Amino acid sequence: MTTTTRIVLAERPVGEPKDSDFRVETVDLPEPGPGEALLETLYLSLDPYMRGRMSAAKSYAKPVEIGQAMVGATVSRVLESTDDTVAVGDVVLGYGGWQTHSVESTSYLRVLNPDALPVTTALGVLGMPGFTAYAGMHNIGQPKAGETVVVAAATGPVGSMVGQLARLAGARAVGIAGGAAKVAMLTDEFGFDAAIDHRADDFAEQLAAATPDGIDVYFENVGGKVFDTVLPRMNLYGRIPVCGLVSGYNATALPDGPDRMGMLMGRILTSSLLVRGFIQSEFAPTQMATFLSDIGTAVANGSIRYREDIVDGFDQTIDAFRGLLTGRNVGKLIVRVAG
Amino acid sequence: MTTTTRIVLAERPVGEPKDSDFRVETVDLPEPGPGEALLETLYLSLDPYMRGRMSAAKSYAKPVEIGQAMVGATVSRVLESTDDTVAVGDVVLGYGGWQTHSVESTSYLRVLNPDALPVTTALGVLGMPGFTAYAGMHNIGQPKAGETVVVAAATGPVGSMVGQLARLAGARAVGIAGGAAKVAMLTDEFGFDAAIDHRADDFAEQLAAATPDGIDVYFENVGGKVFDTVLPRMNLYGRIPVCGLVSGYNATALPDGPDRMGMLMGRILTSSLLVRGFIQSEFAPTQMATFLSDIGTAVANGSIRYREDIVDGFDQTIDAFRGLLTGRNVGKLIVRVAG
Repeated sequence: MTTTTRIVLAERPVGEPKDSDFRVETVDLPEPGPGEALLETLYLSLDPYMRGRMSAAKSYAKPVEIGQAMVGATVSRVLESTDDTVAVGDVVLGYGGWQTHSVESTSYLRVLNPDALPVTTALGVLGMPGFTAYAGMHNIGQPKAGETVVVAAATGPVGSMVGQLARLAGARAVGIAGGAAKVAMLTDEFGFDAAIDHRADDFAEQLAAATPDGIDVYFENVGGKVFDTVLPRMNLYGRIPVCGLVSGYNATALPDGPDRMGMLMGRILTSSLLVRGFIQSEFAPTQMATFLSDIGTAVANGSIRYREDIVDGFDQTIDAFRGLLTGRNVGKLIVRVAG
Repeated sequence: MTTTTRIVLAERPVGEPKDSDFRVETVDLPEPGPGEALLETLYLSLDPYMRGRMSAAKSYAKPVEIGQAMVGATVSRVLESTDDTVAVGDVVLGYGGWQTHSVESTSYLRVLNPDALPVTTALGVLGMPGFTAYAGMHNIGQPKAGETVVVAAATGPVGSMVGQLARLAGARAVGIAGGAAKVAMLTDEFGFDAAIDHRADDFAEQLAAATPDGIDVYFENVGGKVFDTVLPRMNLYGRIPVCGLVSGYNATALPDGPDRMGMLMGRILTSSLLVRGFIQSEFAPTQMATFLSDIGTAVANGSIRYREDIVDGFDQTIDAFRGLLTGRNVGKLIVRVAG
């Protein structure tokens, strides 16, 4: 009998998740049944959307129940397989969640090739975050040569891909990040045309200077102050793919007024803006294969770059997740669990 | 020398337009130059967008300047023509504005056939309002059979077309209007599946009962309380074409808080909503001809119905316009100026 050590939701967090909102427990795993595999987690992914799963509010996916293990993508090694689609020793992308071992349906697993690229890329640049950027730009943002694309959290796995895809389309890429080190990374490492620190007192003036022709695409993944500053600069027929609003994920109440909801609708009307929320899973069935092929090649040959922030040790998971919500990580946040 | 009596903007209205915001004046018109025609206004169109033109706020079109005549579509008779595209006696659709006579470029004029349909239809069901509904549904709303479409101001020329196009697509059409007479008209005259009075105390409950499967398309032309009530009922992948926000056009300040702008973005995200502002002129170059042909046939054979509210006398223009912003009219509001 194999056991797993897992982090379960003990209470729904109010505001920033506290240690006491979780419980670490070690339990027996069932034997893998037909079509299942027993996996050892090597790396687990931490992503902003997980904050939503901790909440009972209506969202695009069911919340994690109290007492259930937190969900999430994992890179794991196959310990036992009942099925010839994965073999013992294979390294696979799965959805094991915040735990050291898991039993999963083999139909959800994708075998990775550790000789091609680091297997952690399946959680970031070549995983859900990278595909989120790709799907949002391909289907909604659709930048044209000469246009201006703005993205926040731009050193993250979504934002850095957005900027690089904008550049590949011939658009001007403007990245927003917090702190001098991240800002420098945007131009030096990811090739953004301009980079701005959202913590700067003159953030609005810097954004105006960096977007002299206005903004055609704002890829929304943070919300809050950045959105407030971007909105007045959106051009006629601007597009706003909305894949996340991380700045508000810990919010416990609506901000004080005045109520700007009607103002936003007014801006959408007067500038013929397109605002479209999306989750990458909408586009994965039809576009993931092309993404993996095209972007996989670009990552392998270095024409698309990425950065990972790998935290060592399963016991660091909760604290690392808190840091993700406040921008402490630099690049795609991953916890090394084993291997 | 021909004179025109015209209504010019004397001051920018604050809140509801007052008589003193306008000035009626009679001035000489220039002789029509090459490519121009002298026109006598038969009917002038009153439309909600005109409130925006009275304001200096940034919008999709330049504001009317102080001292300039109010703009707008007109059906006119040709008194003099310098050009063989229009002949003396022709009845034409033009853009003469709030005045009794005008000199216009013939390139903007469309000759109407008074024997086919009433010429006033060129201002409503077969004009800008009807095409607004058509373009928004065709390009953004895209209702599918079995889906639910909701529209407010539903006895108006945009809303009544939205409902009828929804029905033609096999969707369930739910109309919102103010007052029992208008509500009855929605089902009896325009064929809506359900109709609701937004003034009812239990408006939210009525809307829920009328949309048991949620809302797939909300055609936004009013904003305010209706939008607040519709938003929580939007389905996954719902579409919101935004062509107007008439309920807020007289507003002088943002409403009191809390600030729901982030909440709206959150709803867009979690339900993968599409919100798209548009002005019909974006689509007119490519789709107006098809609209005039297809919808013209449908109006002529009675499969699409329309209602007009024709006010008699140029001196009624300002008061009629005020009524438009508060829903006093029933159907497309037109002022009969002559003829």
